Amino acid sequence: MAETSYTIEPIGVIRSELTNLANAPLQGDEGNYEAWLELTPQAAPGLLGLRIGDDLLVLTWLHLAERDTLQVHPRGNPDNPLMGVFNTRSQDRPNPIGLHRVSVLQIDGQRLKVAPIEAVDGTPIVDIKSVLTEISER
Amino acid sequence: MAETSYTIEPIGVIRSELTNLANAPLQGDEGNYEAWLELTPQAAPGLLGLRIGDDLLVLTWLHLAERDTLQVHPRGNPDNPLMGVFNTRSQDRPNPIGLHRVSVLQIDGQRLKVAPIEAVDGTPIVDIKSVLTEISER
Repeated sequence: MAETSYTIEPIGVIRSELTNLANAPLQGDEGNYEAWLELTPQAAPGLLGLRIGDDLLVLTWLHLAERDTLQVHPRGNPDNPLMGVFNTRSQDRPNPIGLHRVSVLQIDGQRLKVAPIEAVDGTPIVDIKSVLTEISER
Repeated sequence: MAETSYTIEPIGVIRSELTNLANAPLQGDEGNYEAWLELTPQAAPGLLGLRIGDDLLVLTWLHLAERDTLQVHPRGNPDNPLMGVFNTRSQDRPNPIGLHRVSVLQIDGQRLKVAPIEAVDGTPIVDIKSVLTEISER
């Protein structure tokens, strides 16, 4: 099982004032940072129908994460018992996909301004999904 | 931007009675299917601390999806206006990552029985994250 690997071709990139991990909050609502999602020209048709105020799930590739980490002390606090990364929201994990729930603040062609999002400038965007009521949380 | 691609190495595979897309519901709670998450031996240490009853987000690679689709009629209904895939939950999209919120029903070594999950048998597992209260939805 799991013999096959798959290739992610980013659909865009995060443009943010956050330029390094030391300044980045651990979760998106701990600072309420805004950022631009800059889509590639190829991916831009996938934005059709989006409107200001829409809620989205943004999936990113946390390119600065450590992929060989399987256990951590949650939130980097050694007082927290060691946990498997799949039981945490640590960014360090074998496939470091970030998950961010945001609202659309502004739309400018193939760019969306969104908040809150804690990803650093240059973080690749993997996917964007609508947030549906009720059913979306499944 | 987005010149670089990234490689997903699956951490495991879905084992389910659902064997083809024709039988699969569009969302996880439209059928309440159970499935086993079978982790690879390499990834299994990442499960440390998980317990029955925990809520998890399971990220899958929807290997049967069409990656060149950018616009769809939501839920395959031509009466729904054409939408960019990033404004939908369509499985067809450039990087077809599935997002499933599940509860842990049973733990057997490196296998977890979970529900509800609509992914078909053989779907690769990309990541597993804990669901935190409040903050988790960000």
